[in-house]
Amino acid sequence: MSKTAAPRLERLSFLKRANLTRHHMAQRLFKLMEDKKTNLSVALDVTGQNQLLQMADLLGPHIAVLKTHVDILQDFTPDFGTQLQAIAKKHHFLIFEDRKFADIGQTVSLQYRGGIYRIADWADIINAHPIAGPGIIEGLKGSNLLLLAEMSSAGTLAKGAYTRSVVAMAEAHPETVMGFISLRKLSDQPGIIHFTPGVQLASGKDSLGQRYRTVDEILIKNHSDIIIVGRGITHAANPGEQARIYREAAWQAYVQTVA
Amino acid sequence: MSKTAAPRLERLSFLKRANLTRHHMAQRLFKLMEDKKTNLSVALDVTGQNQLLQMADLLGPHIAVLKTHVDILQDFTPDFGTQLQAIAKKHHFLIFEDRKFADIGQTVSLQYRGGIYRIADWADIINAHPIAGPGIIEGLKGSNLLLLAEMSSAGTLAKGAYTRSVVAMAEAHPETVMGFISLRKLSDQPGIIHFTPGVQLASGKDSLGQRYRTVDEILIKNHSDIIIVGRGITHAANPGEQARIYREAAWQAYVQTVA
Repeated sequence: MSKTAAPRLERLSFLKRANLTRHHMAQRLFKLMEDKKTNLSVALDVTGQNQLLQMADLLGPHIAVLKTHVDILQDFTPDFGTQLQAIAKKHHFLIFEDRKFADIGQTVSLQYRGGIYRIADWADIINAHPIAGPGIIEGLKGSNLLLLAEMSSAGTLAKGAYTRSVVAMAEAHPETVMGFISLRKLSDQPGIIHFTPGVQLASGKDSLGQRYRTVDEILIKNHSDIIIVGRGITHAANPGEQARIYREAAWQAYVQTVA
Repeated sequence: MSKTAAPRLERLSFLKRANLTRHHMAQRLFKLMEDKKTNLSVALDVTGQNQLLQMADLLGPHIAVLKTHVDILQDFTPDFGTQLQAIAKKHHFLIFEDRKFADIGQTVSLQYRGGIYRIADWADIINAHPIAGPGIIEGLKGSNLLLLAEMSSAGTLAKGAYTRSVVAMAEAHPETVMGFISLRKLSDQPGIIHFTPGVQLASGKDSLGQRYRTVDEILIKNHSDIIIVGRGITHAANPGEQARIYREAAWQAYVQTVA
C-alpha cells in the first residue's frame, strides 16, 4: 500500500488507550511508547549471550520492546535475566521472551516459572499459541501474555476460524492477555496491543518460509500497533542507524493514523 | 467404550508396518515395540534431573518411548542427554523430547540444534505444532518428527480444518514426519505412528483443562498406536507396578485389533 492511500480507519492514541485499560503492563507499554516516541520492537535472534546484551545496549534507545529467544543462546548463564533487566531499565524498554508456549496449562506453568531459564523472573511479556485451549491461559496466570492469532510465515494455519477462536479467548481473559501477535488489528478492546513480526523496509521472503511485509502495510493499512523487526536491523551494516530508520518510519505511520 | 464392542477396523501389525515404511526411526520403533511387547510411553513431567533419571531406570523395562520436558528441570546439567541415553540403551527405549516447537523454520532450527539443551544431540524423536506452515518441517529436517494434529485438553483448537491441514503436511513430508500426536488414527500411511496423551485407566480431567480417556477408547475404538501416560503412573504409590499394568492393558488392546 502506498503512503498516499487513505487509512481504513482512525485509531485511538496509545495515551488514550492507556487510560481505557486496567492491564497494568499494557498501560505501562502504552505510556512508554508515547514517552519515548517509538513503537518498534527488535527481535535479537542471536546465539551469543554477550552479543545479545551488547546489541540490546546499542539498540535500546530506539525501541519499546526487546524480543528474545533465550533458548537459542549457546552460552546462557543464570544471570542473563538480571543483566538484561539492567539494560532495559537504563534505556526504558520492555523485555518480551518469544517462547511461544504451546502445551497444556500444567506444563506451561512449569516451563514459564521453572527450569534453567526461569522466564517469569525477568520477562515483562511472553506469548503463547492457545491451541491447547483456555487452560494454557490459566496456566500462565500472572504473566503478561500475547496470544499468537496470526503468523507471518507462508502456509500458516493461524487463520480463519482458528484466528477468531484466539480473539475470543483473548477477550475473555483481559486480566492476563494484553495483546496479539497478528498481521493486523483484530480486536477493538483498547488494552489489546497488536504486535506484527515479519516486517522489513521492502517486502520479500527467506528460504524457510518467512514472509516480509512493509511498515506502512502493517501500521497504516492493517492498523497494527508495534512492528517487530529482526534481520532487517540486526543484519544491517549499521544496526543502530537502521533501528533509527525503522523507528522513525513506524512512529510516523502510527502518528498519521491517530484520530 | 467397553471391551466387548467390535473394533471399527483391523490394523496392520507393527512388524508389517516396519517393512512398509522407509522412515528409519519409525522402523526402529515398530521393531522395538514388537520385540519388547510394549506400546506404552511414559511422560516424566518431573522437575528434578536425578528424579527423572531414576524414574527412567525404574520404568525403562516397561516402555517403548520415554517422553521428557527438558525445560522444566530445575537442575539441568549438560550431561543430561548422555546420562539419559545410557539408560535408554540399557532398557531399549526411545527418547521423545516433547518440546512442541511452534515457530518459523529459521528459529526452530536454532532451538532444536543449539541453546543449552542441544536437543538434537540426545532426543530420538521430537514434535511440533506446524502452525507456522511447512517451513517448520524444513527447519527441523534431519529430525524424527511428530506433528501435533489433535490435543487431549478441553477447548483445543487442533480440530477440523486445522487437523486436516496437519495431516496433509505430514503426508507431504514422509522423510521427516514419522507420526502424530492425536486422539485417533488419522492417516493410512503405514509409517505414520499415532501417539495419544491424556490416557489413564479411568476417564476424568485435571484442574487446568487436561482430559483423560481410557486405554481401550484410544487403542481399540480410535486405533491409535501408542498411549502416553503421565501422572497416572508417576503419581502412583508404586510407579513400576502401575507401568506394568498400563503396559499390559495397552499391549492387549493392540493385539486384539491386529488383522
